[in-house]
Amino acid sequence: MTRVFAYDSTLRDGAQAQGISFSVEDKIKIVQRLDELGVSYIEAGNPGSNPKDMEFFRRVADLKLNNAKIIAFGSTRKVKVAVEQDKNVQSLLDAATPAVAIFGKSWDYQVTDILRTTLDENLKMIGDTISFLKRHGKEVVFDAEHFFDGYKANPDYALQTLKAAADAGADTLCLCDTNGGTFPSDVYTITEKAVQQFKVQIGIHCHNDSEMAVANSVAAVQAGARQVQGTINGIGERCGNANLCSIIPNLQLKLGLKCIPDENMNKLTSVARYVSEIANTTYNEKAAYVGNDAFSHKGGMHIDAVSKNPVSYEHINPEVVGNSRHILVSEVAGRSALLAKIRQVDPSLNKDSAEIKHILDHLKDLEHEGYQFETAESSFQLMVRKLLGKHRPFFDLHEYEVNIHEPSANGINSSVLIKISVDGQEEVTAAEGDGPVNALDKAVRKALERFYPAIGEIKLTDYKVRVLDSDKASAAKVRVLIESRDQHESWTTIGVSTDIVDASWRALIDSIEYKLVRDEERQFLAV
Amino acid sequence: MTRVFAYDSTLRDGAQAQGISFSVEDKIKIVQRLDELGVSYIEAGNPGSNPKDMEFFRRVADLKLNNAKIIAFGSTRKVKVAVEQDKNVQSLLDAATPAVAIFGKSWDYQVTDILRTTLDENLKMIGDTISFLKRHGKEVVFDAEHFFDGYKANPDYALQTLKAAADAGADTLCLCDTNGGTFPSDVYTITEKAVQQFKVQIGIHCHNDSEMAVANSVAAVQAGARQVQGTINGIGERCGNANLCSIIPNLQLKLGLKCIPDENMNKLTSVARYVSEIANTTYNEKAAYVGNDAFSHKGGMHIDAVSKNPVSYEHINPEVVGNSRHILVSEVAGRSALLAKIRQVDPSLNKDSAEIKHILDHLKDLEHEGYQFETAESSFQLMVRKLLGKHRPFFDLHEYEVNIHEPSANGINSSVLIKISVDGQEEVTAAEGDGPVNALDKAVRKALERFYPAIGEIKLTDYKVRVLDSDKASAAKVRVLIESRDQHESWTTIGVSTDIVDASWRALIDSIEYKLVRDEERQFLAV
Repeated sequence: MTRVFAYDSTLRDGAQAQGISFSVEDKIKIVQRLDELGVSYIEAGNPGSNPKDMEFFRRVADLKLNNAKIIAFGSTRKVKVAVEQDKNVQSLLDAATPAVAIFGKSWDYQVTDILRTTLDENLKMIGDTISFLKRHGKEVVFDAEHFFDGYKANPDYALQTLKAAADAGADTLCLCDTNGGTFPSDVYTITEKAVQQFKVQIGIHCHNDSEMAVANSVAAVQAGARQVQGTINGIGERCGNANLCSIIPNLQLKLGLKCIPDENMNKLTSVARYVSEIANTTYNEKAAYVGNDAFSHKGGMHIDAVSKNPVSYEHINPEVVGNSRHILVSEVAGRSALLAKIRQVDPSLNKDSAEIKHILDHLKDLEHEGYQFETAESSFQLMVRKLLGKHRPFFDLHEYEVNIHEPSANGINSSVLIKISVDGQEEVTAAEGDGPVNALDKAVRKALERFYPAIGEIKLTDYKVRVLDSDKASAAKVRVLIESRDQHESWTTIGVSTDIVDASWRALIDSIEYKLVRDEERQFLAV
Repeated sequence: MTRVFAYDSTLRDGAQAQGISFSVEDKIKIVQRLDELGVSYIEAGNPGSNPKDMEFFRRVADLKLNNAKIIAFGSTRKVKVAVEQDKNVQSLLDAATPAVAIFGKSWDYQVTDILRTTLDENLKMIGDTISFLKRHGKEVVFDAEHFFDGYKANPDYALQTLKAAADAGADTLCLCDTNGGTFPSDVYTITEKAVQQFKVQIGIHCHNDSEMAVANSVAAVQAGARQVQGTINGIGERCGNANLCSIIPNLQLKLGLKCIPDENMNKLTSVARYVSEIANTTYNEKAAYVGNDAFSHKGGMHIDAVSKNPVSYEHINPEVVGNSRHILVSEVAGRSALLAKIRQVDPSLNKDSAEIKHILDHLKDLEHEGYQFETAESSFQLMVRKLLGKHRPFFDLHEYEVNIHEPSANGINSSVLIKISVDGQEEVTAAEGDGPVNALDKAVRKALERFYPAIGEIKLTDYKVRVLDSDKASAAKVRVLIESRDQHESWTTIGVSTDIVDASWRALIDSIEYKLVRDEERQFLAV
């Protein structure tokens, strides 16, 4: 089976993205997960430009990695500086990695107008730096920056830069679409030229500025490239880098090439979520292969066809990449889809059980009121538990009273008084907040945390509101969706009311109850 | 210049996405913006499966469109049903659109295993339906569902389905990669076959399950397809549809094909934002071409090179698509576009006026706070009027106090006390409502109607809320958009605050003030 080397640059080029910043600890954890996934190279930092990276390279040297080589990244020597005297090149040696990547210019105009040196000096910068690194025993990847734009402007010179690198002993010549503007058809043709001309392995490094980075990477591999660079979830500056979470399954599952060990392919989704969590970015639930929506089915006809045969609307089996099929709960979903969800709560039920009819009738009423459980599966589960008599309420609300006053002194314009009880023990408390929902959230947590300290682990991560019957103006019903997260998982709950505060309250309470139910389940499983 | 017909399915296939639901009013507004952008076709609904869509088709018939034809979407007649008796086909006629699209099976296994009929009956279903629609004078697009998977399994049969459609008079044969699993190289080869074999125009419809929908659409056009289907921002079920916001500039700016009028290309970014706001989805700031990050430069070296020559790290000039370069942390977009808007308030201003700088600085502050005037042009106009000293406040708010109590007797859980003055005349009043926003709305109208009876003409028609910094949980800032209407027009205003009631209040007040300003203008014009 033809081998293609997966080269991850999440920790280097990915970290260039707006709003991304990894600590040394973050980087160590991501290296371990990437190694478990089975990528071949991890480009993990630029020791010359970032002093924090040197500490990382010291620490990463102690890790025992099974699949991946760590790469330190830097540039060719500076113009008219002896390579032995170049500090950045020296720092590449100091990083003490088995392999290094250096980038150099391959677009003539960039040499003359940005570097402001001669075309010949640039070739020497490439050659000198690589020879030096090879003399020090490094495996060397040469990143030919702007290669495709350079090739279109001056193909001879672009190829000369590759030749300078190859002659100096580079192990891989990586063709970079630095601006992300190249088309797959051109990537294919130009990569094929490089593959034909050089015996050295060719690599590909793409950016997503034309929304074609994945296709460009695939096209280069089809033309003979054997090292493919990218990042997890495609993070990277501007529109991002080529997304390894799509490239790896595309190459391995569709073209039969080998990027990572087959038995690790089902780790892909969890690695994608893990990196997103560490990077603190919003996970793209619509992502190919690894998003929650990637195998979600909504239309009744599609659901019917998928239950007859999944290949109807699924290009791969979701389990292969560690994802799963989601049949969405909604008006259009057929009975059989709902039954599957209800049986998650009580596996003893079947389609003829009286309880099922009872639940479906209730669901119909709720949907008529404006509830929509398509995304709020946690509220759906709670509703089913309640109707099946399997739910023990964690607390009783006696009353709450919200007071908002404008103008306010310091933004804290709202106060809430709340009265609840847990197993007969009453608790009256109050809280202030930036607005009524915040005050209510604080008050209910304050009242309940005494009884259920785990509530402190809940983070509210998203909050959506939709007006349902907009012709009723400000008296319209609103639907609130709240997304919450703890250290284990993320879940979504729903509330519908004519009062936005009350709708938020309902979603909030479902979120808290769901957390407590799940904690009980986890405790039970752990016993 | 070779023409490629842009075919938008945001309102039909896009609306299949999880969590997306467009009202009739939403759809009408999006149609107008798409027509202004200059797409050739707008596939706007499925009249057979959704009764709400029929109302839309009645209303859209009254719009005067300059570029786009409206398309009603449906399927071929049912198995063994005479086409004249098929209700869904009949509903396509009832929609009274100039053009229709129907989908039919082109994968043999789907015919025998999902439809459970003969291969021959499927060909008749395609032929009968298209002949019938052609007899009724419709332009017909045939969507060959699963065409690429079908072609790989049984090329002869897949081509026979196209032939049945062509023989019956279809105007376009659209090849669908329904499961999104096909590669650009295969899309190219297979599309080329279809182009060679049929005189009829070939179309392409891709899904993004392999993160290659844009590249697949481009490859099909390179092979000769001349109708390209997709959605704004790539919204759609699972991983989404092919993204027209990337396809259109890729084809037009890079391949020199004509999809939309050149002079409209700079509307692309604002249309993308507009649709995202209406759909109430999180905007992808990393989107190619139209995202805020697409031309953002962070790395110092990149910034330096970009300031020497933008082509260093930009594949196109961002202004061409109505986007802009972000070097520093400046969020202000499109100066020239803004200037035009400001000059609507004061035509005497030009780009060098001190007032313009003042407004832009203020705008930057507001955008930093979370304001976004893309859809809320009425609030923008009010802000400009205020900064130019052209706004006379219609009233002063002294204070309001909101009280919410749960449990409530009859849903009326909120009361508001409000104190305002108009020209020194004070008014204190109170109102109750289903929730605080409703009570506040009623109270402020009650207080002001004595002075400005025209306020009674305002109807609030939509209300949207978006959380801006979701990591701050319930203390997060929220952005409220309120859409209002009177007998003359409809307008949208915005409010941002950590308090959802306060944000709603701000948007509400802007709505009332805008109404009063416009009434004055109308009175002035009528004199």
